Amino acid sequence: MPRPQSDIDAGRERLVEQAIALIEERGNSAITMTELAAAASMSPANLYRYFDSRDALVEAIAEYWFRPKVAIMEEVIASDLTARRKMFEFFARRFTMMKEEWERDPLAFAVYVELGRDNFEQVRSYVDLGDHYLSLIIGEAMAEGYFEGLSIDETLSLVNQMVSVYVNIGAMEMVMPRLTTVKLARIVDAIFDGLSARDRGSAGLAELRSVQNA
Amino acid sequence: MPRPQSDIDAGRERLVEQAIALIEERGNSAITMTELAAAASMSPANLYRYFDSRDALVEAIAEYWFRPKVAIMEEVIASDLTARRKMFEFFARRFTMMKEEWERDPLAFAVYVELGRDNFEQVRSYVDLGDHYLSLIIGEAMAEGYFEGLSIDETLSLVNQMVSVYVNIGAMEMVMPRLTTVKLARIVDAIFDGLSARDRGSAGLAELRSVQNA
Repeated sequence: MPRPQSDIDAGRERLVEQAIALIEERGNSAITMTELAAAASMSPANLYRYFDSRDALVEAIAEYWFRPKVAIMEEVIASDLTARRKMFEFFARRFTMMKEEWERDPLAFAVYVELGRDNFEQVRSYVDLGDHYLSLIIGEAMAEGYFEGLSIDETLSLVNQMVSVYVNIGAMEMVMPRLTTVKLARIVDAIFDGLSARDRGSAGLAELRSVQNA
Repeated sequence: MPRPQSDIDAGRERLVEQAIALIEERGNSAITMTELAAAASMSPANLYRYFDSRDALVEAIAEYWFRPKVAIMEEVIASDLTARRKMFEFFARRFTMMKEEWERDPLAFAVYVELGRDNFEQVRSYVDLGDHYLSLIIGEAMAEGYFEGLSIDETLSLVNQMVSVYVNIGAMEMVMPRLTTVKLARIVDAIFDGLSARDRGSAGLAELRSVQNA
């Protein structure tokens, strides 16, 4: 008789936590299903009842890591802040959480950077989800008159590039001591007050022409 | 009798080029002095007349890689462009050169990312030199009235963060297909027209207070 779904879910959650403890303890993300089964005092066959492959386990670890970040994004999107305030909170709250994770254990943080780099397929859906929510904020900002002449996708790409060090854990890790929410606020203000399709002379003639044709 | 300095310099240059060929061919930066000596058909003792340690060799490779980028920076600084145009050219010309290197051989590019990460001490002086030149441009911009209320160091840090993906080869590598000089021009325009110490509401009360106290 199959166990009720909630039992399986609770078991998966416990196993993910054990996998994370193992990864953080070893400082290396290359654990095997056999090693996790041993750490959880169960047979590999039993472990496969919870995760039918190592990929499924990595996907569950990613879901566990991203869950509080997704909750922050949903909370900010649902709030009645202005678009400008929303964009700041959207990045600042997650950055603050990740900075705390880094401060608590920089080596474990480095393992997550490695894990994300080696398993980008399992991470991509969260990147896409973040882009989706950020697009909503950009759409609201456009309705308020910001980012004149740019499309949502162009703005999305530009904003992602300008705040990259506050979002991407690999980029963040290299410069963490220099990152602060005060600087992030100044960057978000520069984005709102400075970003548009209007060429204001930074590029030379050749680039100007391609800006106009873009 | 010691060889004339120019002979030694020419020999070092040839050996650096052989080391680079070896590194790019193997797709791995971990070459030894013995391997380079063999590739150059000379004895290790002879090689040590040119580089007295592996560190000295890595430093020479860094100098070789950075040389054309430093030339670009000096050329832009010496030009009579406006500060805004200078900042764009300062980043755009080097970015275009690095993008071409990546297009020519993405695997070799990845080796340089790894080499820079593993030998940051040899790279740091070039990062500092770039900061020095960028500070000059920021100073000129301030004389023109830009970046109101910010210090040169604060502006330097903010600009470096906002253009990070166009400068840092590790960050660049991850998103290269999305990087264009047109987007860079828009970011530089946003920096000039949007960046100042004035709080314009992106941060909430707590951050506002720390902005005022910063």
